[in-house]
Amino acid sequence: MDETARIARIAHILAAAPCGVDGVEVGIGDDAAVLFAGGVAGRMVWTIDEQVEGVHFRRELAAWRDVGWRSFQAAASDVAAMGARPWCALCALVLPESVDDAALEELTYGQREASMAVGAPIVGGNLSRGPGFSIATTLLGVCESAVTRAGAKPGDDLWMAGQVGLAACGLRALLGGGVVAEDAKPAVDAWRRPAALVGPGLAMANVAHAAVDVSDGLARDVGHLAEASGVAVILDASELLSDAVLIRAAEGIGCDPLDLALYGGEDYALVAASPLPIPGFRRIGRIVAGAGLVLRTRGGDNPLLVRGFDHFGG
Amino acid sequence: MDETARIARIAHILAAAPCGVDGVEVGIGDDAAVLFAGGVAGRMVWTIDEQVEGVHFRRELAAWRDVGWRSFQAAASDVAAMGARPWCALCALVLPESVDDAALEELTYGQREASMAVGAPIVGGNLSRGPGFSIATTLLGVCESAVTRAGAKPGDDLWMAGQVGLAACGLRALLGGGVVAEDAKPAVDAWRRPAALVGPGLAMANVAHAAVDVSDGLARDVGHLAEASGVAVILDASELLSDAVLIRAAEGIGCDPLDLALYGGEDYALVAASPLPIPGFRRIGRIVAGAGLVLRTRGGDNPLLVRGFDHFGG
Repeated sequence: MDETARIARIAHILAAAPCGVDGVEVGIGDDAAVLFAGGVAGRMVWTIDEQVEGVHFRRELAAWRDVGWRSFQAAASDVAAMGARPWCALCALVLPESVDDAALEELTYGQREASMAVGAPIVGGNLSRGPGFSIATTLLGVCESAVTRAGAKPGDDLWMAGQVGLAACGLRALLGGGVVAEDAKPAVDAWRRPAALVGPGLAMANVAHAAVDVSDGLARDVGHLAEASGVAVILDASELLSDAVLIRAAEGIGCDPLDLALYGGEDYALVAASPLPIPGFRRIGRIVAGAGLVLRTRGGDNPLLVRGFDHFGG
Repeated sequence: MDETARIARIAHILAAAPCGVDGVEVGIGDDAAVLFAGGVAGRMVWTIDEQVEGVHFRRELAAWRDVGWRSFQAAASDVAAMGARPWCALCALVLPESVDDAALEELTYGQREASMAVGAPIVGGNLSRGPGFSIATTLLGVCESAVTRAGAKPGDDLWMAGQVGLAACGLRALLGGGVVAEDAKPAVDAWRRPAALVGPGLAMANVAHAAVDVSDGLARDVGHLAEASGVAVILDASELLSDAVLIRAAEGIGCDPLDLALYGGEDYALVAASPLPIPGFRRIGRIVAGAGLVLRTRGGDNPLLVRGFDHFGG
């Protein structure tokens, strides 16, 4: 199909997924989408995320439908981490010749599934050919006031919704090749089908002092929260190891579950600093005065390097 | 530099270019930008555009500063074509190892220049490594009501602001290699430094029935307007050949100026259908009942193929 036909096909697939969202006056097919802003009482949050073949996924490890799903959820997670409700999205695709019409359809169905799960339609985008595949998703969300990374206060507890380490465990299981062991299957699902925690994000919106989503690893992303807030964070190792599914999956592939929990990314857990419990979150640590991260174990406290996934090797 | 350092450097360069824009409460550095929506009285328009090395430019033909400038202007042109005022932008970069820190800085300075020219700051984005360079820019604009491609009526005149064919002429001059002839220099500038026509876009907002920007060639983009509006368009060849700069530049490289004007893209002219003259626009044709495009020459009327740049060879 040529460009016009491909856009028409994408528009047809996406239009079949009405999300019941107000305010979208013009969708796919014009120079830009048109949104009625009068319905937005407070703030908008706005993010862009891009997934690149060979960096964020490999074609032999993820179906195109999963690639579409994952890319949308990664962007939606940023909106959830601000305590906002996803509103609508645009998508820019770079397609090499090796991505044929059937692959593009599967990708679009994956985006559509995620878009419906998140409640935000795709209302426009851009298609380009190129030497390598990439997919950029930009999402708008709405909220009364946004929860940023800055604002955590000494005395707050640190809370987490979702899981950490499982997606990284699943990726390692896939990279190992062969048949995936039964114990590792939940981990593989976590990597292939992560879900932005929109509900928990809304639940923390009126309580949390600060929040971040875990895309590049807990240590790295909580490190960002600590730095932006000018505080130190104590992470409780026993709480991070309370996930029996992770423990079993990690053992199955011979990895340390704590290492996966601290440095594995792409689960899209939400972490929030709050003086009060938040529905759907469990306590994983504490905010104190100072700087940096500390891991609290039975053997004592250890400073934690703020490392994780860095695109340029930092 | 690692990812964190690169983001900090980009944020520093961009922060030094205040655009005096209201409503941006949180910029680069959090999970998402935060915008105060209460100031938007009417509509927002929202676009994303992506430029890919080897498709939209070649490194030996454009300086990195030009690449940054062009990519931002291409997105801003979509906002201008809707009759909206650019508000703010996000940018997603995919950087191969061959794009070093100095190149990234130049690229960012080019974006900054364009951002200031257009009046819309870059308030966030995404960095990823990848096998090939690409830059995706998403822009929000604000307007009372948007001018779409649909709405042109038989009896309207067709108006154009800016020029067509010159950028394509400049690109061909560069591709020819060697020293660029004096007559071709304005064409090369048009390709390297196109400018989104924000002022003309605002001028047509309350008058035009329909509008489109010319990114893929006049015939193709006006074809889109005709199709979306359910009308036919007569283009006046003599008006398209009234640009003495284009004529001289085309002659210098042995190209047909009418062919360049009809099928050359990337000038980012604005074309609008309106019953009344629009300040900054000149008349280039007429809307009539029917479908398709007609080129009116001294020799008579000829149907025009709706072709131009198609990413997948249509």
